[in-house]
Amino acid sequence: MSCDFLALAVPGVQKLSPYVTGKPIDELARELGIAPADITKLASNENPMGPSPRVLEAIRSELAELTRYPDGAGYELKSRLARQCGVEMAQVTLGNGSNDIIDLVARAYLAPGLNAVYSAHAFAAYPICTQAVGAQSHVVPAIDYGYDLEGMLEAIDENTRVMFIANPNNPTGTWFGPQALEQFLARVPSNVLVVLDEAYIEYAEGDELPNGLNYLSRYPNLLVSRTFSKAYGLASLRVGYALSSPQVADVLNRVRQPFNVNSLALAAACVALEDAAYLAEGRRINDAGMLQLEAGFRELGLTWIPSKGNFIAVDFGRDAAPINAALLREGVIVRPIGGYGLPTFLRVSIGLPEENARFLVALKKVLASV
Amino acid sequence: MSCDFLALAVPGVQKLSPYVTGKPIDELARELGIAPADITKLASNENPMGPSPRVLEAIRSELAELTRYPDGAGYELKSRLARQCGVEMAQVTLGNGSNDIIDLVARAYLAPGLNAVYSAHAFAAYPICTQAVGAQSHVVPAIDYGYDLEGMLEAIDENTRVMFIANPNNPTGTWFGPQALEQFLARVPSNVLVVLDEAYIEYAEGDELPNGLNYLSRYPNLLVSRTFSKAYGLASLRVGYALSSPQVADVLNRVRQPFNVNSLALAAACVALEDAAYLAEGRRINDAGMLQLEAGFRELGLTWIPSKGNFIAVDFGRDAAPINAALLREGVIVRPIGGYGLPTFLRVSIGLPEENARFLVALKKVLASV
Repeated sequence: MSCDFLALAVPGVQKLSPYVTGKPIDELARELGIAPADITKLASNENPMGPSPRVLEAIRSELAELTRYPDGAGYELKSRLARQCGVEMAQVTLGNGSNDIIDLVARAYLAPGLNAVYSAHAFAAYPICTQAVGAQSHVVPAIDYGYDLEGMLEAIDENTRVMFIANPNNPTGTWFGPQALEQFLARVPSNVLVVLDEAYIEYAEGDELPNGLNYLSRYPNLLVSRTFSKAYGLASLRVGYALSSPQVADVLNRVRQPFNVNSLALAAACVALEDAAYLAEGRRINDAGMLQLEAGFRELGLTWIPSKGNFIAVDFGRDAAPINAALLREGVIVRPIGGYGLPTFLRVSIGLPEENARFLVALKKVLASV
Repeated sequence: MSCDFLALAVPGVQKLSPYVTGKPIDELARELGIAPADITKLASNENPMGPSPRVLEAIRSELAELTRYPDGAGYELKSRLARQCGVEMAQVTLGNGSNDIIDLVARAYLAPGLNAVYSAHAFAAYPICTQAVGAQSHVVPAIDYGYDLEGMLEAIDENTRVMFIANPNNPTGTWFGPQALEQFLARVPSNVLVVLDEAYIEYAEGDELPNGLNYLSRYPNLLVSRTFSKAYGLASLRVGYALSSPQVADVLNRVRQPFNVNSLALAAACVALEDAAYLAEGRRINDAGMLQLEAGFRELGLTWIPSKGNFIAVDFGRDAAPINAALLREGVIVRPIGGYGLPTFLRVSIGLPEENARFLVALKKVLASV
């Protein structure tokens, strides 16, 4: 006799809705019956530059070892990260993308009866990972789409174990400065782990955005999460990392699957980390593309949320779903963010100049007819 | 003030001891101050053949898309697996290695107050994943190092949600036949999920070992777990899969991280799946290597556990740790399995003829002096 294996799942999992990914190019190509090359995807905040030649070389030189397990300790990458970030190796945790880091934190520190605090319009992995372990979410309303850090402090109660804050935030692109971070960290109780998600920091660090690493030595309850999926251009390979106190890293490494990061990702990340020219060129392309999209939106009479990421959320002042559907028919994939409480917006990743231009042409056409 | 972040972790995680991996070649090379090429590693049940040229070609042709996220739905690989295994796509769950599959099952179906049943000397991921979610383990003593399936049925109580059985079992290599599996499945309560771990099935399927897929349609509480890390030679890339009822697959896919399998792994697995010549040659090498090692052990007066895997557990009748240490000094890495309750054994992966020979020479030398 068959049994109800949904009802048998643990309560948090029963209520889970999976993360909605950016539509893959191949999928739209199949649906429209056109070639993948005729599709422009600005939906997943991917690096538009294509891979770095140095990274490709590192991967190729690793291929002979394909049948071997990865180094589960990630010795080489962790030692390079430690050196570059000015921390001990024992403070580094490697993840299968930074999604894995968020998941490890939730598994280690959250459970039914405990809660995580995060903002409205925050990255979908925070609610999913919190829900998966049956913990509660304290979602704090945003102010002008950005974080209400004061309100987030007020949302902490005796069962709060984790706070998720992203700087800049995805999908809004909003940010907070060094002073705001400093004042925030000083007021978070020492038994609450602050996950500072800096997935986009390489596009944004500077006068207006603090570098989370500068606060690690003073706040043992701070964890800085980063990724190689964005500015470093390694989204396909899945590698992210956390920097924290050695004790938190020890706990996360107990939960971590022993071979969570694959060998090619480890080899590629080692090289990418030192490829300053690739990062600099990526930031230049991103800055220029941001101006290009803003100018295009201005011309179309649209407003947007100012962003420090490699993406921009544009507001149509009406349900954006039909606009998204029409853009897909034009072969352009962007990201609807109704699931983030922003149903009148679409999030557009910054592409190469010609990709941005193609999107703007399609958008103009679509807005004239939808 | 600093806080105790070990004490703040959830109880199951606090007590976790991480999985002990096979010693990486690079690590031993650093320790001994010798070249990696001078080391023979027979410690992680890796495929000794090296990568298939067809797989390498598939990876190379995917490198241009390195900056893109993987297809989170794994459409192409899932559809090929479904076709080859004679199931629906909705019955497939992809994992970051089959360790990920075991972990997903534990997260979905186990929690404090619930328990998993498995055998003594079983794969370390079963206790680790069970413990990580705070569930209990009912560990059933083995009979002649193999499963006591009758005893495992008796260990089921009203809080049992999962049973882990591997065929063949790692690290012992023991197995059970079609009739034993059939009788076992017929008696497991329908609300207990049976995870049949077939990580090594490609080396063993035949008259003596059943193919778990043949039982899926009759037992909706059966999940068959498989991997590309062994016979398919893709350990570095991390890709495994589960075949189950659509409902169980739906639940596991909710817990699964959206991009848990990287793009190169997806591309490589698609090709590896159809590379029958590579599989056949691997099985031939394994069969011959098994005979070679058995002959060597016989000559040295040693006994071993007959194995259907790509490894063999050899018994020294005394603490094997000094023998392992001496082998390391000879540049040979095998696996101590004291942590599996087998302190007098070492597990040796089947290598190429020259690797097996080098191990046997080193072993003979070591046994004369330790």
